Amino acid sequence: MTETALSPELEAVVAAAAAAAPAFAATAPEDRARAIVAIADALEAAKPRLVEIAMRETGLTEARLSGEVTRTAVQLRLFADTLVDGGYLDARIDPADPDFVLGPRPDVRRTHIPLGPVINFSASNFPFAFSVLGGDSASILAAGCPLIVKAHSGHPELSDATAEVALEALRRTNMPEGIFHVIHGRDAGVEVLKDPRIKAGAFTGSIGIGRLLADIAASRPAPIPFFGELGSVNPVFITADAIAERADEIASGFLTSVSGSAGQLCTKPGFVFIPSGSALPAAISAAGADLPEHRLLGPRIAQSYAERRAAILGSEGVRTVIPGGIRFDDEGQGWATPTVVAVPLDGFRAGYTALVEEAFGPLSILVETPAGTDLAALMPEFYEGNLTGTLHLGALEGTGTSENVDELRALVTAISRQVGRVLFNGWSTGVAVTPAQQHGGPWPATSNDSSTSVGTAAITRFLRPVAYQNAPAAFLPVELRDDNPRGVRQAVSPAGESGGWGARWR
Amino acid sequence: MTETALSPELEAVVAAAAAAAPAFAATAPEDRARAIVAIADALEAAKPRLVEIAMRETGLTEARLSGEVTRTAVQLRLFADTLVDGGYLDARIDPADPDFVLGPRPDVRRTHIPLGPVINFSASNFPFAFSVLGGDSASILAAGCPLIVKAHSGHPELSDATAEVALEALRRTNMPEGIFHVIHGRDAGVEVLKDPRIKAGAFTGSIGIGRLLADIAASRPAPIPFFGELGSVNPVFITADAIAERADEIASGFLTSVSGSAGQLCTKPGFVFIPSGSALPAAISAAGADLPEHRLLGPRIAQSYAERRAAILGSEGVRTVIPGGIRFDDEGQGWATPTVVAVPLDGFRAGYTALVEEAFGPLSILVETPAGTDLAALMPEFYEGNLTGTLHLGALEGTGTSENVDELRALVTAISRQVGRVLFNGWSTGVAVTPAQQHGGPWPATSNDSSTSVGTAAITRFLRPVAYQNAPAAFLPVELRDDNPRGVRQAVSPAGESGGWGARWR
Repeated sequence: MTETALSPELEAVVAAAAAAAPAFAATAPEDRARAIVAIADALEAAKPRLVEIAMRETGLTEARLSGEVTRTAVQLRLFADTLVDGGYLDARIDPADPDFVLGPRPDVRRTHIPLGPVINFSASNFPFAFSVLGGDSASILAAGCPLIVKAHSGHPELSDATAEVALEALRRTNMPEGIFHVIHGRDAGVEVLKDPRIKAGAFTGSIGIGRLLADIAASRPAPIPFFGELGSVNPVFITADAIAERADEIASGFLTSVSGSAGQLCTKPGFVFIPSGSALPAAISAAGADLPEHRLLGPRIAQSYAERRAAILGSEGVRTVIPGGIRFDDEGQGWATPTVVAVPLDGFRAGYTALVEEAFGPLSILVETPAGTDLAALMPEFYEGNLTGTLHLGALEGTGTSENVDELRALVTAISRQVGRVLFNGWSTGVAVTPAQQHGGPWPATSNDSSTSVGTAAITRFLRPVAYQNAPAAFLPVELRDDNPRGVRQAVSPAGESGGWGARWR
Repeated sequence: MTETALSPELEAVVAAAAAAAPAFAATAPEDRARAIVAIADALEAAKPRLVEIAMRETGLTEARLSGEVTRTAVQLRLFADTLVDGGYLDARIDPADPDFVLGPRPDVRRTHIPLGPVINFSASNFPFAFSVLGGDSASILAAGCPLIVKAHSGHPELSDATAEVALEALRRTNMPEGIFHVIHGRDAGVEVLKDPRIKAGAFTGSIGIGRLLADIAASRPAPIPFFGELGSVNPVFITADAIAERADEIASGFLTSVSGSAGQLCTKPGFVFIPSGSALPAAISAAGADLPEHRLLGPRIAQSYAERRAAILGSEGVRTVIPGGIRFDDEGQGWATPTVVAVPLDGFRAGYTALVEEAFGPLSILVETPAGTDLAALMPEFYEGNLTGTLHLGALEGTGTSENVDELRALVTAISRQVGRVLFNGWSTGVAVTPAQQHGGPWPATSNDSSTSVGTAAITRFLRPVAYQNAPAAFLPVELRDDNPRGVRQAVSPAGESGGWGARWR
């Protein structure tokens, strides 16, 4: 089972990760928490040096990158607390029940264990928060799975420097050798993903590459789960009341969201549905008079953005609200200012293919809908799966007492059926790292929408359930023991309660 | 997106399921609970008639089938109570926090919503408990997903009769039209699985067919989750102490487990590792003198069993403990008595390919291991993924104070890494339907081991998370509201607590 065609270098990486898996799985959650906090502290201590490399490799600003390091460190620490809390184990205890309705019930107890070595393909647009020590890596390590990061080609030097910081912290906190690796090159990543010793994959990037990798994961002799965060155009719906009440505020929030990080965010609002003839385009045009120019992440992304932008501007019925632009410097780097266009709903429908694909950069499309348009029906027509969907309401509408409340409820339900996060009166960029966060959604937003890639629920992706039947206490995982020394939440189904099932629903 | 090549009949089924999805998702959990209990009651009321059909179509005994109807009804009612409890929604609330460590945190609340229409390929060996109204169907309906059952060809008449019972109960409890369908034929099942309106698949059956369907689900333009419960050989390890203390009891329990339902159970103990030279083979041989003959489920299964049995008996080093046999009647039905063989560990290794594949029928293999064999190391060598793994311990060993406790702990850990359920001093057949049950395991035991197909946790397979950010109460799902009228468990992360993350782990 361990025969592979890996190069000696990759074979050493995968063999080390596989060999380390049992020891890492056996570490106490408190010890993993300590190691993860040590990584977070070391990352913040190395911030000046790392941000300098990141600025050079990605073109992102110092302020943005510095904030991202803080976010990444906080994210790691949050997983440390998740580990200590233990609720993520979903510990369940069914004590033995001699009078169980189907005959004597054994003692059954269920917890979750790590999957084993995981490969994480890191992203270009968040060189810290979705890269070597980002949310995917944090949740993989927290789960107790050895981690192999496939570095993004956009910031190779930063990836290696970040890895050194992590390795030193893991050594200092006595974690098993072999649980952390960074590799380079797409072919290397694919070869590792195919290896039978790898038990799951994570990815943040494009639909094309994500699909390729998901197909590889699914077609292995033993298929594995693959959690890819792919493409999203994040529809926004703004009511006439909201525009009447606060057009300027909405225009300004919208432009901040579209232009931040040069629009290279998976949660950038790509389509904004507004009533025809509203004051919003003018407000946006006025607010967007002199937005600064930013470098895009790299020449390939810039080239692709320039092509998408040209296709959208050339589509029939599209009119310019803020022209913006893109230019290339001598090194092939692209520099962009935000572009906003508007198109009537029938023009959007006619130019659907040219318009709907994600434009990864600072561009957004206003779609003007005639009065009486059934917006809820528009959702499924529009785009299959998204990370987010947003609704801006007027003050009365927000109370749920306006005349159109049924239409608005239908729209909220329609949005929820196709996204992972529904926002009200806000903007989808800037994803809070919290226990209730959901960053994921139906295909093609993700390749597997059973979980999230941001927030502490992300840890569940790299665990699977195991039950123990009639296990002596000496052989039970500690969170399943009656004395529960870690104080983990245990859901207990007491004996003697099975007789009444469903009785009250007859 | 709704264009398909389905036949008019299948198109009507899928279109009805898709059209019913929003209305079904919007039903109150209490109303779905009431409908599910009505189905359970109707199923039990129809028991005599249904069992008569099942006996004719499957050859299973009246006692077994009658018990299976009770189990199926209890299973349905258990999901009704799961719905009312609401804990499965994993409701999380992060109230807004102006002092959040990464800047003001919005109010974020997370729950789970149904995936949409699901196709369930039912099993041959449980014509009730894993068929039209079995655990998969129960969890799909409980989740609020329209259900299309692909009936098993082994009991078509029973499938239709069961569907009528369910449809009548659903109508009586005012559930939306179109949420329940039974279709026939493998091609029909495949066509429906490919349809973009179908959002998940469930399956219980062979590795071959399961893999075929899993590949179809994964290779669709929009891939969907596919929860297949496939093959398992369920290793058992019995220590010398356990045999010394209770060889006869173990022999009798083993034979009951191997011969029940003519061995056609996915949890049948297929391999039993025992110390070389122990008294167990003789005890088994003595206890198995005159076991009754049973009909296998159908000619195809019987033929396949006869072939597997011949291959195992013909493998070098294999010796017969209980010969058993299989004969075919004039209608091509196979009738079997249990076969038990023994093979030394080196013979098992030499004949691995012939021996290791599941023999679906009343046959089990004792593997005799020399003193000093590292049993924990044997697990990964033996077989990749299993539904269960079992350990029989002596009395002192069970206290965790015996000399070999470290070896036993290592063995338990090794078993847990490759199975979904670890049993002690019991037998893996007879899966309790309870909240802590885990029926699933690494490939090829299942195609997706993130959940279970038995027990109430099974409902999570057909749900996905959705978060609501700064949603006015009027637009929140009821389980996320502060007033929590349903009394669902809500995990709240209070504001003001973010400063200390990880602090105690420095």
